[in-house]
Amino acid sequence: MSEFQDRAAEINDLLCVLNVLTWDARTQMPSGGSATRAQQLATVSAIARARLLDPAFEQAALRAQQQETTRRAASQALGATRAMKRIPERLTRELALTKSAAQDAWARAKDANDFASFAPHLQRMISLSRELADALGYQDHPYDALLGLYEPGLTSRSLHTLFEGLRAHHVPLLKVIRTRPQPRTDFLRRCYPSEGQRTFSLGVAQAFGYDLTRGRLDASAHPFEISFTRQDVRITTRYREHFLPAALFGTLHETGHALYEQNVSPELTRSVLASDLLGLYAVGGASYGTHESQSRLWENRIGRSRTFWELHFPHLQDHFPEQLADVTTTEFHRAVNVVEPSLIRVEADELTYDLHIMLRVDLEMALIQGDLDVQDLPDVWNERLQSDLGLTPPDDARGVLQDIHWSAGLFGSFPTYTIGNVMASQFYEAAQRAIPELNGQLERGDYGTLRTYLTTQVYQHGRTFTPHELLVRSTGRGLDPQPYLAYLTGKYSELYDLPTAHREHA
Amino acid sequence: MSEFQDRAAEINDLLCVLNVLTWDARTQMPSGGSATRAQQLATVSAIARARLLDPAFEQAALRAQQQETTRRAASQALGATRAMKRIPERLTRELALTKSAAQDAWARAKDANDFASFAPHLQRMISLSRELADALGYQDHPYDALLGLYEPGLTSRSLHTLFEGLRAHHVPLLKVIRTRPQPRTDFLRRCYPSEGQRTFSLGVAQAFGYDLTRGRLDASAHPFEISFTRQDVRITTRYREHFLPAALFGTLHETGHALYEQNVSPELTRSVLASDLLGLYAVGGASYGTHESQSRLWENRIGRSRTFWELHFPHLQDHFPEQLADVTTTEFHRAVNVVEPSLIRVEADELTYDLHIMLRVDLEMALIQGDLDVQDLPDVWNERLQSDLGLTPPDDARGVLQDIHWSAGLFGSFPTYTIGNVMASQFYEAAQRAIPELNGQLERGDYGTLRTYLTTQVYQHGRTFTPHELLVRSTGRGLDPQPYLAYLTGKYSELYDLPTAHREHA
Repeated sequence: MSEFQDRAAEINDLLCVLNVLTWDARTQMPSGGSATRAQQLATVSAIARARLLDPAFEQAALRAQQQETTRRAASQALGATRAMKRIPERLTRELALTKSAAQDAWARAKDANDFASFAPHLQRMISLSRELADALGYQDHPYDALLGLYEPGLTSRSLHTLFEGLRAHHVPLLKVIRTRPQPRTDFLRRCYPSEGQRTFSLGVAQAFGYDLTRGRLDASAHPFEISFTRQDVRITTRYREHFLPAALFGTLHETGHALYEQNVSPELTRSVLASDLLGLYAVGGASYGTHESQSRLWENRIGRSRTFWELHFPHLQDHFPEQLADVTTTEFHRAVNVVEPSLIRVEADELTYDLHIMLRVDLEMALIQGDLDVQDLPDVWNERLQSDLGLTPPDDARGVLQDIHWSAGLFGSFPTYTIGNVMASQFYEAAQRAIPELNGQLERGDYGTLRTYLTTQVYQHGRTFTPHELLVRSTGRGLDPQPYLAYLTGKYSELYDLPTAHREHA
Repeated sequence: MSEFQDRAAEINDLLCVLNVLTWDARTQMPSGGSATRAQQLATVSAIARARLLDPAFEQAALRAQQQETTRRAASQALGATRAMKRIPERLTRELALTKSAAQDAWARAKDANDFASFAPHLQRMISLSRELADALGYQDHPYDALLGLYEPGLTSRSLHTLFEGLRAHHVPLLKVIRTRPQPRTDFLRRCYPSEGQRTFSLGVAQAFGYDLTRGRLDASAHPFEISFTRQDVRITTRYREHFLPAALFGTLHETGHALYEQNVSPELTRSVLASDLLGLYAVGGASYGTHESQSRLWENRIGRSRTFWELHFPHLQDHFPEQLADVTTTEFHRAVNVVEPSLIRVEADELTYDLHIMLRVDLEMALIQGDLDVQDLPDVWNERLQSDLGLTPPDDARGVLQDIHWSAGLFGSFPTYTIGNVMASQFYEAAQRAIPELNGQLERGDYGTLRTYLTTQVYQHGRTFTPHELLVRSTGRGLDPQPYLAYLTGKYSELYDLPTAHREHA
């Protein structure tokens, strides 16, 4: 290996170590360990950052840029070091300290339903994030700089256009669905012991191709996927004994993320192309949106499809014979696809989910731009939720305080959830075209061809290509909401037996 | 904090991170992760080593040595850096590589009962360990240099004297015990489901004072205790459904180690005095022997005592009513203290255990000295086991290949197990003198005063004092086998109803 590759490998090792420390803290660590764990994380982060900024790494990258085989990796490394050099060390330190305090304050404020106690922390986090945006630089809008940390190439301008199109589709579709009778969903809230949920969900994850010799499933308060190279890719879920969909679709969602990471090319192991250097995060996926496209694809396009439940519902009934004795496959499929405006983003159906995202993105853009005061945030949130979804939160805990993101300074990451939805349908449509026999395979529970196709098109490349390049290579075009809108219209037209006029809307 | 303390804290963070990575590898990691995990460990180790050898750390330590408050820590740091500088980097690298290959070879050789395939790896490990001893330097015997890595101050000369005394006591005591009738032990091999074993053992661990807000118990192939500062001290055990003592006493043993680490003074957190700098290991205990003294004290002096089982046997019966229906407290107490020569060190009783250790120590000293050829090792092992314990292993897997230590290059660590036995009785006798009401407390299951006493005398000091200093402060004298010999003689005289003449032997 060249000096550039050696140094990059050590940096990747350190980023993987940060992930191990994080996984442990979120799944295994006793409560008493949190303060010293934070110091361990800070020490390793600082070392990783120092190695990235080491002039010797930059020199090695400049030499590697001259070689065809290492050009892309070296260019990405140089882009990261240049961006990181623009961020003052003081700002990095203050962001870390503020994040830690703000997350604690958020957790307490949420428990106590007390936005006011969180407001000063949020205000500080907004100021620092704005400083970060200024340091990184932007053309039109400071929010673009933050967006670029999660979705390279995306701008508020293109996001605005995309969201206009989605809103023009989603709002009338939701309106017409609300005129139709709702399916029964009572049986989803019967008692489902966790062990059976785990066994069934993990069985499906394995059927999708999740390799347990290089992974494992645990429980955690918030589900996530995390990897320490493609050789060790772990997922978590959260069991709710009286709400079956939570752990079930949570597991399939994280499995989608895990399939991406487990199928990054072995040659990229410990390389720049399996490292988010600027984010100091070991990850093989091209961007947050690209990653989310794969979790959504496996969770929604496969896991919520009629074809899937035709095959798997009998197995689910084997696990829960009493709970599902009076339920048909059709009823189950309709229940896990019910559209119903609700307060909580992470529990929202596919259609209203995007409305939750757009609400947050509009508000966080205004916060970063300085067009919205923190003290006005709860009122604006509630007004917006009323106008978009016809609901008013009974308290801020189930309103503006529900998400951890802003306390963690993750301004610019919310859009990637909706970007993921859009990309998922683009990749899936391309897969349908490329694999004529796909439907038959899925009917038999044969997910190997789809997974191999996605590996070839997306997973194996790691961070070699930008999200735009990946889309163009697979679908012939850039980000395009049409396949997604057609999917939603078609799906809900059938599920809710909508009038033909509406079916043609998409 | 001073620069010295800052730098020491970061080094301790890195050593704690190595422990997290190791704990995860041994309890959670899927098999596919081992190769990249090894690289992550190597990268963090190399960074920790480089930080220790950083001239700026040495300079800061030299300044800190002038301050009363940091003198001891700084001197220890300087001792470690000076010793480490004597070890060529090439040797460090070769030791790491050879260890990795030799451990794999050992595991395969043990499975296949094929010593010959392991012999070249062992030969290489012996050569490198001898090189290490030469690099570290010694007065009388190269083995002393290795011994010092685990038990500072101990020499082969003092070890020889100690072992002569133990042998002169143990061998005749064993002989007379073998003439007495054996207690029944059949019920120990009934079926004990793991969950009940775990609940009971963990309950006792908590009664001893193991704090689960700063700890946790898991299962692993080989039981161990490991800490990431006093705030997160984890133990593991191994469940055997048809042999109750394994997990039970294993858990109490590791609990003793954990009590040590959890009760190191909070002021020593992240300091040199909670770090084995030369061993690159985050540990709060003064030495391997001192640590072992506490695991043995809680496991044997408390956990195998008549007083303990008078109180706890009824609770154990509650967990296993059928398995223990026909067993009395006396029978149970005698069964878990049965003396019986056996092939496997880790399954040996308290008396024959030391004979297993002495055998290994004599052989490893001869190997390091060059007085014993690797090819002769199996024969010498078997002859020695026959003369010491009257047994001949049916194969090398249950003979010379049973322990991992030599494949891991841990020459010099075996003596610390027996040192621990000796020190345990010294500390326990001092506790009995210092706490007149101790027996009454133990009868009631009140372990707090004993734990507090040991914290005051031993645990809180971390690595501030040498093992010798700790002994002198607590007992008024250095290493002294008399309390241990008196304990064993008294205990077995009662359990085996030995003639009075023998009772006076000690």
